[in-house]
Amino acid sequence: MHHQHSPETCPARDPAKGTMLLNHLSRPSAARHGVLIKGEAVAQGSHSLFFIAEAADEAILQAFLAPLRQAGNVEVTAAMTCAAMVSSGGCEERPVDVSAEVLDPADACQDAVEAGLLIHSVNPLNGETSVPDLAGGAVMPNGRFYLRNHFDIPNLGGDNYRLSIGGLVERPLKLSMRELHNLHAESQVVTLECAGNGRSLFDPAVPGEAWGLGAVSTAEWTGVRLMEVLERAGLRAGATELTFRGADSGVVDGHDAPVRFERGLSLDQIRETDALLAYEMNGETLSPPHGYPLRLIVSGWYAVASVKWLTEIVVTDQPCEAYYQAEKYWYHWVRNGHNERAQVKLMNVRALISSPEEGENLPRGDTAIRGVAWSGAGNISRVDVSLNGSPWREARLVGERRRSAWQWWELITRLEETGPLTVRARATDMTGRTQPEHAEWNRLGYGNNSIHSVAARVI
Amino acid sequence: MHHQHSPETCPARDPAKGTMLLNHLSRPSAARHGVLIKGEAVAQGSHSLFFIAEAADEAILQAFLAPLRQAGNVEVTAAMTCAAMVSSGGCEERPVDVSAEVLDPADACQDAVEAGLLIHSVNPLNGETSVPDLAGGAVMPNGRFYLRNHFDIPNLGGDNYRLSIGGLVERPLKLSMRELHNLHAESQVVTLECAGNGRSLFDPAVPGEAWGLGAVSTAEWTGVRLMEVLERAGLRAGATELTFRGADSGVVDGHDAPVRFERGLSLDQIRETDALLAYEMNGETLSPPHGYPLRLIVSGWYAVASVKWLTEIVVTDQPCEAYYQAEKYWYHWVRNGHNERAQVKLMNVRALISSPEEGENLPRGDTAIRGVAWSGAGNISRVDVSLNGSPWREARLVGERRRSAWQWWELITRLEETGPLTVRARATDMTGRTQPEHAEWNRLGYGNNSIHSVAARVI
Repeated sequence: MHHQHSPETCPARDPAKGTMLLNHLSRPSAARHGVLIKGEAVAQGSHSLFFIAEAADEAILQAFLAPLRQAGNVEVTAAMTCAAMVSSGGCEERPVDVSAEVLDPADACQDAVEAGLLIHSVNPLNGETSVPDLAGGAVMPNGRFYLRNHFDIPNLGGDNYRLSIGGLVERPLKLSMRELHNLHAESQVVTLECAGNGRSLFDPAVPGEAWGLGAVSTAEWTGVRLMEVLERAGLRAGATELTFRGADSGVVDGHDAPVRFERGLSLDQIRETDALLAYEMNGETLSPPHGYPLRLIVSGWYAVASVKWLTEIVVTDQPCEAYYQAEKYWYHWVRNGHNERAQVKLMNVRALISSPEEGENLPRGDTAIRGVAWSGAGNISRVDVSLNGSPWREARLVGERRRSAWQWWELITRLEETGPLTVRARATDMTGRTQPEHAEWNRLGYGNNSIHSVAARVI
Repeated sequence: MHHQHSPETCPARDPAKGTMLLNHLSRPSAARHGVLIKGEAVAQGSHSLFFIAEAADEAILQAFLAPLRQAGNVEVTAAMTCAAMVSSGGCEERPVDVSAEVLDPADACQDAVEAGLLIHSVNPLNGETSVPDLAGGAVMPNGRFYLRNHFDIPNLGGDNYRLSIGGLVERPLKLSMRELHNLHAESQVVTLECAGNGRSLFDPAVPGEAWGLGAVSTAEWTGVRLMEVLERAGLRAGATELTFRGADSGVVDGHDAPVRFERGLSLDQIRETDALLAYEMNGETLSPPHGYPLRLIVSGWYAVASVKWLTEIVVTDQPCEAYYQAEKYWYHWVRNGHNERAQVKLMNVRALISSPEEGENLPRGDTAIRGVAWSGAGNISRVDVSLNGSPWREARLVGERRRSAWQWWELITRLEETGPLTVRARATDMTGRTQPEHAEWNRLGYGNNSIHSVAARVI
């Protein structure tokens, strides 16, 4: 949008009119008019104002810009983002039309790029946090939380949304978000890790998204305990298993018809993990890439169990046999010449070093080695650090001990000699599980919890 | 910035070149080049790309834009924000020059407006959260955290910054941020409230920033325990008091020379509150408006004690007598015709209702009344809710009990009758303190913890 007025009609000359315009043109005011302002610039000396903004249609934009038309001319030009331009194949092309049922992949990609995620794939949108960005408190800003999607991102309206609970229940339910908000709220700080985190470090290489080490994050999730909702529905005799259906679906290898994203858990697993139906993430409404309006949060399990865009829960007496339960997310090992397999469930114990960063130059003297550690099987009991192959030294566990969130740790040490510095960290959990030198190779590349090593330099 | 190329040289026609450009022009890549991208638009059909961006000088911008010059023309125009234009008095004017030692007030105001704060004053920048925005988890997104400043916001460089510790110490210290980062890190989730929160609700009206109820927020602060730094400096005999100096200063009524923002605490108070020298807020480096690079966090006290832009700690045997210690932040009461006064210290016990919002229409049936409650004197022991003057009913305390952070509470209730609904909430802390119907009026309007009341309607 370009606005231009003559020097005589410059509205900002009158401070009262200027402040009024400033408030009107602010992002929150624009949002109330249905306009999302992306950028603004007052070109110096030419009485020219540029806005980059989004709105559902031009009429909404024109209504919002009415106060500027009183001062001068307003010209609106259709535009798109760089991500949309590149995905449509050139700036002469029209942006690719997407179904209203899914989020525009170019928009979602643009948001992720802006938040600093390293993008692995645009569609489905997969991106990871950089390990140094893990540094900070127990939770991480939502934009930096990694994204792992299997299909297009569903664009679910909050008002029409219903969570249906059926199958072996006394009273099948269809709950609106308002009804869910009116149940007891609970918050859980939970670390979620993609089962493929670290996949790119397996040797020989395995197929699948080539994650580095940043497909893990922690957030405070707020919502309703799943058991409370199930108690409202009333479980019928024989009910032992649940199937969770997301709104996302698509075509997968070996299947002609599109498949939905579906996963199963037993009632015992629901109780053990105190599973949550989350509608907020770090105090903000879930964003569409993270599962708006409702995501199942299963603490301790690899994040595949935490179904996003949850629309349907079916209570049965049979384990779920859906594609992502039966065909994917299995460890396939070759042991003593035999094939063995096991389902991917709890997160393996693991420590990551956030400081120093790979390649960082550290001055001689006191330095802090820091990072996070977590395990799906129990709290972290210790983290050990080794510098240049020296014997393991126990790090200090920092901050709150939470059942399902990563544990911060640090070791303050003195660096006396200049030269290369290899830092390694190894976590052990309360059940006695610790990290292997090299995690066992498996065909689909899951659960890689090999000891993390960072190469730095003392200068 | 405006870039235009001929249809023949459109770089996005080649997907590899397009993706390379997309990554180069992304915000994180731009930031590595010293360029802050505010907005981008590819105008449809005209092979035109617009960027709104900030950089220290045009050479940096031109270097970043070099890949676009290979495809076509690049034109850079100087521009400013609407906030800068309005504060400079018109778009023909040059933006007001500000000293490099302080943050540009127009920039800081722009950020706060964009985050949705209700602005009370542009310079110094004061803005509050809306009470419904308090809804969510234990912590709040940093942008929505209220801002209370007394002067211009100092623009402290992280590299040249030193925290000096002097006075009655064995070893005066000058600590760089790197040295502080290399001490043991600790995180505390702490609620900070401005002592003037609720001032506008006093009757008769009092002078001072006319806060509503949103000058309170909670964050996880990470840094170094102040006692650890003091132990490194070594306290000398007779050391009982500390003065904390911020980098902010300015002119105040009744003083000819500018005064610095200074506050004092006794060593006992430091130990009791486990005071923290914080460099991170919710896992992100402190932003300039919140005290970058270092802020004292004194849990339980009104936030005036949590000195921002902390540059100097002086250990003495005398209580601090600085302006903001001795002349401001005192309760001045009139009791039985006598003047009485007391210093503003611990936060009074208080509950706020975040849901329903003022004026909200609630459907009949189950509804959740929710909010937060806190007290500087001890944990919250109970919160009671009254609807339309009915007897107090005890709400459920939700989520983690933390020593120094607000407590979420909720009451699920059934609304049977349509019509006006007055919701009131009253908190009580472990020491037995509870909220008064009307807080005692005092001349400067501090500590207003009158019972919060919200008027809604059942439809």
